[in-house]
Amino acid sequence: METIGFIGTGHLGYPIAENLLRAGYSVRIYNRTREKALPLEDLGAVLVNSPEETAVQGGIVLSLVADDAAVRAIATDALVAALGTNGIHVSMSTVSPDISRELAAHFQQQEVAWVTAPVFARPEAAAAKVGNAVISGEASAKERIKPLLQAGFAKNIFDLGTDAGSANVLKLMGNFMIAGAIELMAESFALAEKNNVDPRVAYDMLTSTLFSGPIFKSYGAMILDRKFTGNPAFSAALGLKDMDLVLQTARKSYTPMPIANLVQSRLTTVLAKDTHDADWLSLAMGALEDAGITK
Amino acid sequence: METIGFIGTGHLGYPIAENLLRAGYSVRIYNRTREKALPLEDLGAVLVNSPEETAVQGGIVLSLVADDAAVRAIATDALVAALGTNGIHVSMSTVSPDISRELAAHFQQQEVAWVTAPVFARPEAAAAKVGNAVISGEASAKERIKPLLQAGFAKNIFDLGTDAGSANVLKLMGNFMIAGAIELMAESFALAEKNNVDPRVAYDMLTSTLFSGPIFKSYGAMILDRKFTGNPAFSAALGLKDMDLVLQTARKSYTPMPIANLVQSRLTTVLAKDTHDADWLSLAMGALEDAGITK
Repeated sequence: METIGFIGTGHLGYPIAENLLRAGYSVRIYNRTREKALPLEDLGAVLVNSPEETAVQGGIVLSLVADDAAVRAIATDALVAALGTNGIHVSMSTVSPDISRELAAHFQQQEVAWVTAPVFARPEAAAAKVGNAVISGEASAKERIKPLLQAGFAKNIFDLGTDAGSANVLKLMGNFMIAGAIELMAESFALAEKNNVDPRVAYDMLTSTLFSGPIFKSYGAMILDRKFTGNPAFSAALGLKDMDLVLQTARKSYTPMPIANLVQSRLTTVLAKDTHDADWLSLAMGALEDAGITK
Repeated sequence: METIGFIGTGHLGYPIAENLLRAGYSVRIYNRTREKALPLEDLGAVLVNSPEETAVQGGIVLSLVADDAAVRAIATDALVAALGTNGIHVSMSTVSPDISRELAAHFQQQEVAWVTAPVFARPEAAAAKVGNAVISGEASAKERIKPLLQAGFAKNIFDLGTDAGSANVLKLMGNFMIAGAIELMAESFALAEKNNVDPRVAYDMLTSTLFSGPIFKSYGAMILDRKFTGNPAFSAALGLKDMDLVLQTARKSYTPMPIANLVQSRLTTVLAKDTHDADWLSLAMGALEDAGITK
């Protein structure tokens, strides 16, 4: 089967790379911390020592790294050269739309396609292939990579057209709305607890009727159980990075977003307190602690 | 069939009273503006001239009025006397938990039961009997009135125990979360529009996956269609009253709720601009207009 490249086997990249290997792809993997990728050798992965070594001429390389700087560090001219004509770089990271547009233009000048395809999934959802992908970029390249997204993590794929930055914008909107939903629930549960209403009954009512979607159900239950720390699936630091990106994108486009300011501030407080292993869900602690609820 | 009383045939009370009449109840109706209730005579309603005239001894009276002052104006000693021992007053209004607790205690001293049962439904949902009820109050009275709630508007009934104020708190939590969800979507759609992302594709993605509950689906579609004014199902003035109640309850219990402050401010701006017939959904105009989006 096809040989593909994969860059970045972190919390989210690891289960996706594993799925691709189990689906039968030959996967050449680069991870900055090589040891974290080592167990994937047992599934047939070939570990290499640089981003560009993951590529074969005219092939596909997927990357999933932490931030704009990390994307810039891997999406080099060496990677462009190693992919060559008809090659595709699939950028799955949650980064700014601007960096995707800039690098996509640079890649395309050298006949390497760029598809932006950020991942809507926590690691366990990616592992179960029930995540969601939003994609934007060159049309034929998008068609070619869809099977990889499905084999890797995605139950649904939403196409936002040809602008490489559009998929990043929607990913940022989604993460903003999740963070805002966490804050909404935290304020609401705080009001319940301070007014003799069992927040679990309130949760059951609200999430079985008005707010029956998966975000309110899953994050709401985690807030009630105070699952704020310990082996975070999505860390407060990464959540803050995403809210920084939301506000940076909002600032550049002159879009005031007061709830984004609020959740950024909540996550900043989480990190100010140096909470060990905090999940970004711990932004909910802000509203609870402000109301004097400490357990 | 049983004779019941009904006080308040406004936007929401009217379809509920109509459902009760169609279900076969004999309904004695009082509305401050008598003409609005007149069409219900064709269905057999008996219109009376005071709240207490709706009651029969030992019977049930349901009320659905605008605010705390209106509840106090109808839940008089004359109503207590007219209901008498084994009578029940079902207070369906969205009001403060404090007034429910105060009046419930006063009614119970005179052996009239009080059940708080606010309505989670816009008028069309109440008419279709797919609304949700949250109830709190005296146990046997709650059992006795459940069939009325089901015949009137409720698909589901959630029981919050014996404290007459608890159901009000949950109703306020729910309305706060709806208002917060409207603001979240408005900020998010503004970001999309300012960054070349079609908000309808974003809406489709978000409401078919992460935010698949009915609030995001229905209000999200209305925001995209700019259905802000014209025969409002739930007016901005009533929405502001509810956010006032949320913040008053939050203030008394020392619960800081920054999103509640924000949506209260948004609704205040809607009313400052004297927007004719504004639905409370028009709080979404704040984030859109602040971003320079005027259509």
